[in-house]
Amino acid sequence: MFKEGDWVLIVYKDEKRYLRRLESKGSINVKKEVLKFSEVIGKEEGFKKGNFSIFRPTLEDIILYGFKRKTQIIYPKDTFFIAFKLDIREGSKVFEFGTGSGCTTVVLSRLAGSKGEIYSFESSPEFYKNAKTNMETFGLGKNVKLFNKDFLEADLEENSFDAGFVDVKEPWLYLEKIHRVLKKGRPAGFLLPTTNQISVLLKEMKGFSNIEVLEIMIRYYKTVPERIRPEDTMIGHTGYLIFGRKI
Amino acid sequence: MFKEGDWVLIVYKDEKRYLRRLESKGSINVKKEVLKFSEVIGKEEGFKKGNFSIFRPTLEDIILYGFKRKTQIIYPKDTFFIAFKLDIREGSKVFEFGTGSGCTTVVLSRLAGSKGEIYSFESSPEFYKNAKTNMETFGLGKNVKLFNKDFLEADLEENSFDAGFVDVKEPWLYLEKIHRVLKKGRPAGFLLPTTNQISVLLKEMKGFSNIEVLEIMIRYYKTVPERIRPEDTMIGHTGYLIFGRKI
Amino acid sequence: MFKEGDWVLIVYKDEKRYLRRLESKGSINVKKEVLKFSEVIGKEEGFKKGNFSIFRPTLEDIILYGFKRKTQIIYPKDTFFIAFKLDIREGSKVFEFGTGSGCTTVVLSRLAGSKGEIYSFESSPEFYKNAKTNMETFGLGKNVKLFNKDFLEADLEENSFDAGFVDVKEPWLYLEKIHRVLKKGRPAGFLLPTTNQISVLLKEMKGFSNIEVLEIMIRYYKTVPERIRPEDTMIGHTGYLIFGRKI
Amino acid sequence: MFKEGDWVLIVYKDEKRYLRRLESKGSINVKKEVLKFSEVIGKEEGFKKGNFSIFRPTLEDIILYGFKRKTQIIYPKDTFFIAFKLDIREGSKVFEFGTGSGCTTVVLSRLAGSKGEIYSFESSPEFYKNAKTNMETFGLGKNVKLFNKDFLEADLEENSFDAGFVDVKEPWLYLEKIHRVLKKGRPAGFLLPTTNQISVLLKEMKGFSNIEVLEIMIRYYKTVPERIRPEDTMIGHTGYLIFGRKI
Repeated sequence: MFKEGDWVLIVYKDEKRYLRRLESKGSINVKKEVLKFSEVIGKEEGFKKGNFSIFRPTLEDIILYGFKRKTQIIYPKDTFFIAFKLDIREGSKVFEFGTGSGCTTVVLSRLAGSKGEIYSFESSPEFYKNAKTNMETFGLGKNVKLFNKDFLEADLEENSFDAGFVDVKEPWLYLEKIHRVLKKGRPAGFLLPTTNQISVLLKEMKGFSNIEVLEIMIRYYKTVPERIRPEDTMIGHTGYLIFGRKI
Repeated sequence: MFKEGDWVLIVYKDEKRYLRRLESKGSINVKKEVLKFSEVIGKEEGFKKGNFSIFRPTLEDIILYGFKRKTQIIYPKDTFFIAFKLDIREGSKVFEFGTGSGCTTVVLSRLAGSKGEIYSFESSPEFYKNAKTNMETFGLGKNVKLFNKDFLEADLEENSFDAGFVDVKEPWLYLEKIHRVLKKGRPAGFLLPTTNQISVLLKEMKGFSNIEVLEIMIRYYKTVPERIRPEDTMIGHTGYLIFGRKI
Repeated sequence: MFKEGDWVLIVYKDEKRYLRRLESKGSINVKKEVLKFSEVIGKEEGFKKGNFSIFRPTLEDIILYGFKRKTQIIYPKDTFFIAFKLDIREGSKVFEFGTGSGCTTVVLSRLAGSKGEIYSFESSPEFYKNAKTNMETFGLGKNVKLFNKDFLEADLEENSFDAGFVDVKEPWLYLEKIHRVLKKGRPAGFLLPTTNQISVLLKEMKGFSNIEVLEIMIRYYKTVPERIRPEDTMIGHTGYLIFGRKI
Repeated sequence: MFKEGDWVLIVYKDEKRYLRRLESKGSINVKKEVLKFSEVIGKEEGFKKGNFSIFRPTLEDIILYGFKRKTQIIYPKDTFFIAFKLDIREGSKVFEFGTGSGCTTVVLSRLAGSKGEIYSFESSPEFYKNAKTNMETFGLGKNVKLFNKDFLEADLEENSFDAGFVDVKEPWLYLEKIHRVLKKGRPAGFLLPTTNQISVLLKEMKGFSNIEVLEIMIRYYKTVPERIRPEDTMIGHTGYLIFGRKI
């Protein structure tokens, strides 16, 4: 049952989604329809009142509607793919650089599970703080070690990581270290917004094989059964994903 | 170190990928270049010889190149998204119907982890058998209970599942049961190849809210740094994904 | 040389585009940068001042930035394809129903040339008037006969049209007449926003063969050479195109 | 009526399309169903026999199924857009370099009409010959002047062309001349397969404004009304289109 202080996803007519903390005096107002949080407290998940439905947020809901963003977000369509593509599993030891807002961190974290270890590096104090707060606010990332440090300065054991993910402007500057700390044969992933960066990265990925470059696109449809059609606008680009395995 | 009997992914020039079991007398021949498996046995992951690189297969590699298919495959681009979208986590209890070739099963299984439980139903004896073999062959799905049974015939506790995924022709026939066995507020996902099916399903999803309809597209690029461009052909369609949460 | 009263396309930094009529006292103000039209009059096409470039508008510019819209616009990406797909050429006789804002009309008109004939029908007096004004304002559609009339009420000769294009909600109501007035073997095109409509139309297209259903997507890229990447958002959907030929 | 020697498009079940010249002794055999051409001669367009429908080919049919290709084809989805984007109209004077197989040439030619002039340059004797034959075979390009010559060697008047289209590997080598021969303010278009080429071109397009970079994608759907869905595979890439206007 929902209780005071819980985070909830409030859905209005399958169209609008809000992440709110339940406070007994709180309320939400969408298109002049009001939902008082006092009516939600004590109800079970899936409670519906008027055009509002109330749920506990999924990991995706938290990332999309709950996390504060100081950086360009990496979308769930990308991170869900990245986590599995990196072959992360229960107990995996994974590094990430940079943490950004923590959107990828918590996805990697979930797939690695409670026995897993995510070492996440962020050189900006501001981003580091924000990511830390994001994860703490929603009780995520229990298996994450968050460092306010450049990846190059990290003291990491050779051949010790099962996978790595890098989301920085010039990932090629870190390739040598990435290669060194990965276990033999294991995958690294990169997200890059521009094709120019792909070119530079590919040129430098000598120590990797099974290279793949791809992008994931998501197209949402309207949910009216009599009028099935895509939404008028869609996200045109988030980033290109590059993967390779240490040789 | 690779040893006899291991499954390996053999990559040829970032272009071709093969999943093979290492037998000391075995070999592979790609464009007249031969790799003898006896040369691979005893080497470490990431071993490279000529244009061949050899790795332990990821979950994706196993699904794409190892699983035998008796049914239309559901692609990793879709299943990776589905698993996270359904908010599966360590210890989740999830049902699936139908199992098909087991491609989704093993992805749900991995995210649910060793404490998780996947109940997967397949009414076709042939598909059931094939999925079972697929998982056993690659040592996957330890947390999966596979049933050769129609979902309607399954004896399942009410309000007991954290999530469910359905990949059958007429999922609307199962909505009542899906709704009954899901915990309150929890998500169900559906994969459907045609828009006509989306229409019928949406009409019947009265017991669900926060409905979303979408498709995931993946676009691969060539990996030559001097000539960055998408591949000439791409997969045009696998299926539409529909999600909703029990109210 | 530009003279008073000319329509011009004003481009600001490759980012913003405006269609304006040159009046000697007029001006435009973009991000605090002002361009007085008195400075443009007397200059040649391609004149550049500060971040502004000034051109005579293309047909696309007129449709996108000049035409008043009372209806959902059909985009150039679609109409450019439609006109050629319908095999329109110099002297073609083409019908269209409904005219809408005239966005398709002027494209069909241009390909048919001065010897061509476009019969365009629009049953709404408001849309009819708007389309008429749109074409007159920009001196387009000299070969267009615009009728404020339902297509069923039009008195048209059998087997007399080289091609036809239909953009109405229920095109299947007009199929018999469309078939009757087309020359044998000639193409008809349809634009429909939803997949439900495609289903109904296809079921009724008995008198047609070589049926094709498709959609055209356009993806714009940023124009910074050091940072080639798609725009953040793109149009997700305008309509599905259906083509067939009379048998 | 169809007569001996006519080119026809033969459509089999909306699935397969063939361009054939009608010879009284000829025939076509698709999936063991035979159509004798003697049965077609004397019939009208739109004639149907068994699963075959027979039509006069459209410009698109000729390009896709009739033209011999010595070069990478430029697809109708692209050329239809290019022709209108370049604002070509009745009587336009347009240059093109290189001609390739003539697929773009005939599209530009059609929109320019009988009073138009297309100057098309191709430096390879082999491609030049093939393009010439392609156009002659199908009676296309009456307004085309085809030159077996490098564009730089062409003796062309300054400020004399309404538009230009360039499809060569290194279009930046020709920018100065392109700029010189275009009328002030008029558009040039480029097709490039890789993003690396876009970067180089954009850096050199100093003399142009209103730059746009885009790609056109086409997605075909199955035509079964009860099972509306995209085709399994689609073309993933043909080329990027770049447009700019002379300043």
